[in-house]
Amino acid sequence: MITKKEIKYLSSLKQKKIRLLNHKILIEGSKLILDALKHKQNIKKIIYSNKDNDFSQIRKYAKNNNIIMELCSKKDSERMSDTKNSQEIFALLNFAPPIKINNDTIINDNIIIIDGISDPGNMGTILRTCSWFGFYNIMITHDSVELFNPKTIRSGMGAHFHIKNTYKDSIDNIIEFLKKHNYKIIVTDLKGTKLRKYTKKNKKWALILGNEAHGVSKKSIDSADTIINIDGEKTMESLNVAEAASIIMYHLYQGM
Amino acid sequence: MITKKEIKYLSSLKQKKIRLLNHKILIEGSKLILDALKHKQNIKKIIYSNKDNDFSQIRKYAKNNNIIMELCSKKDSERMSDTKNSQEIFALLNFAPPIKINNDTIINDNIIIIDGISDPGNMGTILRTCSWFGFYNIMITHDSVELFNPKTIRSGMGAHFHIKNTYKDSIDNIIEFLKKHNYKIIVTDLKGTKLRKYTKKNKKWALILGNEAHGVSKKSIDSADTIINIDGEKTMESLNVAEAASIIMYHLYQGM
Repeated sequence: MITKKEIKYLSSLKQKKIRLLNHKILIEGSKLILDALKHKQNIKKIIYSNKDNDFSQIRKYAKNNNIIMELCSKKDSERMSDTKNSQEIFALLNFAPPIKINNDTIINDNIIIIDGISDPGNMGTILRTCSWFGFYNIMITHDSVELFNPKTIRSGMGAHFHIKNTYKDSIDNIIEFLKKHNYKIIVTDLKGTKLRKYTKKNKKWALILGNEAHGVSKKSIDSADTIINIDGEKTMESLNVAEAASIIMYHLYQGM
Repeated sequence: MITKKEIKYLSSLKQKKIRLLNHKILIEGSKLILDALKHKQNIKKIIYSNKDNDFSQIRKYAKNNNIIMELCSKKDSERMSDTKNSQEIFALLNFAPPIKINNDTIINDNIIIIDGISDPGNMGTILRTCSWFGFYNIMITHDSVELFNPKTIRSGMGAHFHIKNTYKDSIDNIIEFLKKHNYKIIVTDLKGTKLRKYTKKNKKWALILGNEAHGVSKKSIDSADTIINIDGEKTMESLNVAEAASIIMYHLYQGM
């Protein structure tokens, strides 16, 4: 049985500063844990309290990969949990934090840029959609919500384990990188041209997604090669950023 | 100044049963209230506590429409609020609950069917997207989250005030109605054909959206004229239902 001290440490991973200091997160739920196991994530141990559930598939994976499974009490489980209906199974994971862009940074594919997205649910949903369409290179600005926020991970539904490269930098450095490497920068703005009229001419593109309330920043719009807009009935002021992102990614994926 | 008794009543509207019994909701935030005023919603009164903000536009609308504006304390405001960073302004609204389908039900347009969506954020986001694309007829099954849940209203961002017709019934009655009125039923399923290959042949269509965890029900799939799938890289099990809905609506809107 797991020690009280360890439960205390695992629960403390709800705090951003502890997560970022240790590069560790606690993920929750059998589906997510199984996905992490399948994608060979750096899992340190698995902790569970639900005796009714045998978690046989997880047990099998854990055994084959020499991952310890430790029992905890229902109360401990409640303390660690971040959800309403906990499945009472957790995995302690080492994560690789997003890195700064440097002179050696090379990306041979399209890039999704998250410029100031503040809602962890939106961030996770966008990563899930990125993963669905196979856009695995992500750049995040400093003012965006944390990539490994528990809510981001939950709404990402495993997308975190599929992403290949993640960078975290200022929008200035991101734009500089994109220009230097001849990316065609795409942004959305109500003044843009209709998305469905847009055909990719260049294979290398980068899509910048802006903040929920303020939209894409002026700096990003000024840097753009293409400003697009999703045509609609103009009854609403805007679409949710994750919805707009999905539609644009669907459109961009089309041409491949 | 508003009475304690009334604050108690307004706070009690956080409870579903009180909302449904009274057909009243409390909406929060100046943007949403302004949108409700502009769309001539049945607003009973406006309550506010933030003295730093003059809410001049709301005041103007309220005056022109003979709507009372009452002051409350910051503490009252906290009691009524459902958000973290409250703007300390609220409006009491009468809402028309969704109705049952009957023999006189006539809809001369496309329909979006929400079949068992459980997350209020997803429901609101879907309504926001419906409104963006001008799909104003919504049918909801009994097992879906409440249309006037505060979180649904918040993520709807005013979509609730644009929707024309809302129905609430069993999926059986909904399908019967659609068949009787010659709707082409569209559902999504992983086994479906690629969305981008799908061209609408019939102008009258109905899109059924399923539950987050279980997808579209077998009953709905069996009733469908068209089963579609959003093509992707197959790394993820599924897209979030609100994302799938946005992409499909974008595609369906295309042909208009």
